[in-house]
Amino acid sequence: MITHIQLTLPRFNRGFHIITDEIERACEENLGRLPLDGMLQVFIQHTSASLTINENADPSVRVDLESYSNKLAPEREPYFIHTYEGDDDMPAHIKASLYGSSVTIPIMNGRLALGTWQGIYLGEHRDHGGSRNLVISVMS
Amino acid sequence: MITHIQLTLPRFNRGFHIITDEIERACEENLGRLPLDGMLQVFIQHTSASLTINENADPSVRVDLESYSNKLAPEREPYFIHTYEGDDDMPAHIKASLYGSSVTIPIMNGRLALGTWQGIYLGEHRDHGGSRNLVISVMS
Amino acid sequence: MITHIQLTLPRFNRGFHIITDEIERACEENLGRLPLDGMLQVFIQHTSASLTINENADPSVRVDLESYSNKLAPEREPYFIHTYEGDDDMPAHIKASLYGSSVTIPIMNGRLALGTWQGIYLGEHRDHGGSRNLVISVMS
Repeated sequence: MITHIQLTLPRFNRGFHIITDEIERACEENLGRLPLDGMLQVFIQHTSASLTINENADPSVRVDLESYSNKLAPEREPYFIHTYEGDDDMPAHIKASLYGSSVTIPIMNGRLALGTWQGIYLGEHRDHGGSRNLVISVMS
Repeated sequence: MITHIQLTLPRFNRGFHIITDEIERACEENLGRLPLDGMLQVFIQHTSASLTINENADPSVRVDLESYSNKLAPEREPYFIHTYEGDDDMPAHIKASLYGSSVTIPIMNGRLALGTWQGIYLGEHRDHGGSRNLVISVMS
Repeated sequence: MITHIQLTLPRFNRGFHIITDEIERACEENLGRLPLDGMLQVFIQHTSASLTINENADPSVRVDLESYSNKLAPEREPYFIHTYEGDDDMPAHIKASLYGSSVTIPIMNGRLALGTWQGIYLGEHRDHGGSRNLVISVMS
């Protein structure tokens, strides 16, 4: 059995943000609770933002990941031809493919089986990305 | 219920290519139509090509992503020891792991729930990669 | 139907390691055999190690992928602020997000539908990462 939940996130600043609570709250509001055993996928319907899993504790990890990403995929590379949507656009597409468009997490005992230090990250790769649409799929 | 479809893609040149139509056509030919609610995974059975999701509109995104990837994982790095299969081989393995071997997309209302600007990309990372084998899995 | 198997890997040295046999053995011990048709996901419950799919044959691919990764995400970057857990920590978080926390593979005819040259890699990105917890999910 597969149930989909559509969730529109509010605007986030460029950078990495933990959205585990937003995902869990959307499941609770729509399903009451998660199944005892299952899988949860979160999919982002955009090509200039990403989803990944990383440390949920020290915010410095998110800061460093953003700094690193901006060096990894810099703006205004002289060979870029996809330039008319702004300096941040092509680097955002690159980061979207490097970090990925979805995360899939086991559900065990009615809870996301994340490790102690794991959280779900939204990677907002544009300066003014606006709100972002997610599809949460719960399989059981 | 899980149904697998094996699809052999024709040869593509090195670079990124949109294959959303090929995936949807294979589903239509094998299943008639997609389930109303479900999930679709596409998996590539190779280690020198990748699957990712990115912009389906302006072809310049695919050009820039290829240019970027070749700078990100350059050929003939002096420290490479896996060199006997050609200059393009080890960079192709690297790109395969950075971009990934599969994409998983929700199916809603009998259609892939891709965002307006999203398409499925084949990353062909070899100069002469030949045809590539995919497994499409439809879960409902 | 979804069954989860928890598997604790022994310590591995920093670098990339093929763990396909460990995954298949855990399935055999817990399920007897894989379903005829299904999907298998492997999820790692850590943020400084990763899972990816790459060549299962020549060990030089794993050596080069490790060398490359250390250049891609170097230690002691002057802008890092997440530094108190050791020089290898922030690069490990970066690699975890670039390579990813899970792999999902079709099961066909009771076997993992990996390509001839594909194996499941553990990316151990810390110098002393210790044992690592995986969740294997079999869907059918």
